[in-house]
Amino acid sequence: MTTARTVPQVPTPPALDLTADPAELTAALIDVESVSGNEGPLADAVEAALRSYPNLRVHRDGDAIVARTELGRSERVVLAGHLDTVPLPSVEGSRGTVPSSWSGTDADDDRVLWGRGATDMKGGVAVQLALAASLTEPNRDVTYVFYDHEEVDSAKSGLARLYRNAPEMLEADFAVLLEPTNGTVEGGCNGTLRFTIDPAGLAAHSGRAWRGENAIHKLADVLSVLAEYEPREIEVEGLVYREGLNAIRIQGGVAGNVIPDAARVEINYRFAPDKSLDQAQEHCRELFPGHELTFVDLSPAARPGLDRPSAAAFVDAVGQEPQPKYGWTDVARFSEKGVPAVNFGPGDALLAHTDDEHVTAAAIRDCHRALENWLTA
Amino acid sequence: MTTARTVPQVPTPPALDLTADPAELTAALIDVESVSGNEGPLADAVEAALRSYPNLRVHRDGDAIVARTELGRSERVVLAGHLDTVPLPSVEGSRGTVPSSWSGTDADDDRVLWGRGATDMKGGVAVQLALAASLTEPNRDVTYVFYDHEEVDSAKSGLARLYRNAPEMLEADFAVLLEPTNGTVEGGCNGTLRFTIDPAGLAAHSGRAWRGENAIHKLADVLSVLAEYEPREIEVEGLVYREGLNAIRIQGGVAGNVIPDAARVEINYRFAPDKSLDQAQEHCRELFPGHELTFVDLSPAARPGLDRPSAAAFVDAVGQEPQPKYGWTDVARFSEKGVPAVNFGPGDALLAHTDDEHVTAAAIRDCHRALENWLTA
Repeated sequence: MTTARTVPQVPTPPALDLTADPAELTAALIDVESVSGNEGPLADAVEAALRSYPNLRVHRDGDAIVARTELGRSERVVLAGHLDTVPLPSVEGSRGTVPSSWSGTDADDDRVLWGRGATDMKGGVAVQLALAASLTEPNRDVTYVFYDHEEVDSAKSGLARLYRNAPEMLEADFAVLLEPTNGTVEGGCNGTLRFTIDPAGLAAHSGRAWRGENAIHKLADVLSVLAEYEPREIEVEGLVYREGLNAIRIQGGVAGNVIPDAARVEINYRFAPDKSLDQAQEHCRELFPGHELTFVDLSPAARPGLDRPSAAAFVDAVGQEPQPKYGWTDVARFSEKGVPAVNFGPGDALLAHTDDEHVTAAAIRDCHRALENWLTA
Repeated sequence: MTTARTVPQVPTPPALDLTADPAELTAALIDVESVSGNEGPLADAVEAALRSYPNLRVHRDGDAIVARTELGRSERVVLAGHLDTVPLPSVEGSRGTVPSSWSGTDADDDRVLWGRGATDMKGGVAVQLALAASLTEPNRDVTYVFYDHEEVDSAKSGLARLYRNAPEMLEADFAVLLEPTNGTVEGGCNGTLRFTIDPAGLAAHSGRAWRGENAIHKLADVLSVLAEYEPREIEVEGLVYREGLNAIRIQGGVAGNVIPDAARVEINYRFAPDKSLDQAQEHCRELFPGHELTFVDLSPAARPGLDRPSAAAFVDAVGQEPQPKYGWTDVARFSEKGVPAVNFGPGDALLAHTDDEHVTAAAIRDCHRALENWLTA
C-alpha cells in the first residue's frame, strides 16, 4: 500500500544582484512579473537580497518589506516604492510587457528599457535597492519601504496595512516616493473625490410627457455648471496646483417611450492641497445648490511640506526646481501621518500603464546619483 | 415491429358567439391568450365565426382577417382593431391576466371585466365582431379589419402587411380604430421621432483633465434647451395637440479617472399633425445649432381629417366633442394612405399594458350602441 509521494517544489526566488548597475537591476525586477495580487515572488527576492546586508534591519508584513539602517542619526528619511504593476498589455506586440527588453546602443546611456513596470515603478525600486546595498554609512538613517497593492483599491494598499500593523517602522522626518517624475521633484499631490447627483423624476409614457417629470432634464444645470467651471490654479508653499472638476459618468433612461424617473451624473473633483477634504466637499456643495451630493470616494490632498528643513535639504541636493504633483499618490498617506513627502523617480508618468511602458537607463542612473549625493553629502 | 402512433391533435378554435352581449364576448376573447406572435388561435376563432355569416366576404392574410359587406353603398368605412396583446403581467395576483374575471354586480352595467386585453383592445374587437354579425344591412359598406402584431416593432405590423399584400381590401372613405379612448372620439395622432446627439471629446487621465475634452460637458447646452423648452399646443382642424420634447436616454463615461471622449443623449420629439416629418426634423435641428442630429426612428403624425363628410357624420352620430390623440396609433397608417381615421373605443388608455387592465361592461355596450346608431341611422 505504498504510493509515490510528490514533494512540493518551493519556487526559489530569483537572486537579485543589488550591486549591479541600477538600470540592469530594473530589468531583473521587471522580469519577475508582479501584477497586483501576485507580488509574492518579487517580495521574496527583495527580502532575500536585503537580508544579506547586515547593516539593514529587515521586517516583512505580507508582501511588504521594510529595511532600516539603525545608525542613530539625528534625522531619518523614508525611500518608498511599490512592488506591484498594473496587468500586462493585452495588445500583442506591445513592448511594455514581461520579460523586459532593451533598445538602443548597448553600452551607454542611450539605452531604453521596455517592460511592464519600467516607469511605474521598478526603476524607482531598483534605485532604492541599489542604495540600500551600497550606503552602509548614510548621513541620515534611511528606511527603505517596498509594498504591495498600490495599483488597486485603496482598501488593499500595502502601505496602509504597514501603517496599521507597524506604524513605528515608518516614523521619519521626510519621505521620498520614487514614483516616476522624469527626475524632477514633485511636491505633495492634489486630493481627489467623487460624488454623484441623482435627481428623481416621475415616469410617464413619453406620449403624455406632461404627466411625468424628466430626471435627465434636471441634470441640465449641473452640466452647465461643469461646462462653465474654470478650474483654479492654486499656489501652496510655492508650487502651483491645477484643479479639475469633471463629469466622468452619466446615465439615465429606460426605454424609448418612457420619461425617465432617474438619472445620475458622477463627478470627479481634483483639488489643491490648500483644502482639507471637508473644505473640498463644501466647495462642491456650493457649486450645486438645490442638489443632493452623494460622496463615493474621498482622498485628501497632500501639502508639499517643502518648508521643512529635511525637504529643503533634499531639494537643494537634487538641484532642481520642485514641481507640483497633479495625480494622487501615496505621498498623501505619508503627509496624513505628518511626514512631509515628495515624489522623485525615473521615467515619464505619462507612460505609466501604457502598452509601451519604457524608461531610459540614463534616467535610472541620474535618480540614483541624486539620491546618493543627498544621502552622502 | 408495430408501434403505437400518436395522432396529432389539431386544436379546435373555441367557437365564438358573435350574438352574445359584447361585454360577454370580450371575456371570451380575453380567454384566448394572444400575446403578439401567438395570435393564431384567436385569429382562427375570429375567422371561423365570421365565415358563418354569408353577408360578409372574408379574407385572411397570416393572422389578419378582413371581413367586408358588399352592398354597393356610396360610402365605405373601416372598423379596425388588433388581435394581439402585450405579454401577461409578471406580478402574481395581477387581475389583468388570462383568463378574464368579473367584479361587481352580476346583471348590470356596474360590472367590471378584468384581463389582459380588456382595454387594449379586446373590448373594441368584441364590438367589431358584434356589429359584423348583427348589421346585415348597414347604411354604409363596412370593412372589418382584425390584425396581428400591433404591440411590437412596426416592421411586423399586420396592418402594414395587409396594406402591402391587399391594399384594395382596405380602400375606404373613413376609418374608425377601436383603440381605447374612454368612449370619446380622438382624432388623428401626434407624430413621433427620436434622434441622438453624440458629441466627441478627447480622453485623458482625470488628474490631468486639461489634456482632454469632456464629451459629457458638451451635452450641457443640449440639456439646457430641453429643460427650458416649452412644448407647444397646436390646433389642427379644431383639435389641440400637445407636443413634447424629452431626453429619454443619456450615457457617457468609462471609468472613475478618465475624462470621457464620448457621450450620447437620445431625444424623443412628439409633434402635432400640422407638421410633416421633414418639418419636425427641421424644428429639431434648429433647436440644437452646432450639434449633429442622428435620427433613429421616424413616424409621421396623422391629421384628424374631421373636415371630411364621413368623419363629420361619425362625430355627429357619436354626439361627443372630439379630442386630440396624443399617442401614436395605427390611425397614422390609414391617414398616410389618404383615409381619414379616428380612434374610438371602450376603456381607459391609461390602463393599457398595466397589471390590472380592466374595462366596464357599460363602456363596451356604449361603444357598440354608438357605432350601431351611426351605421343604421
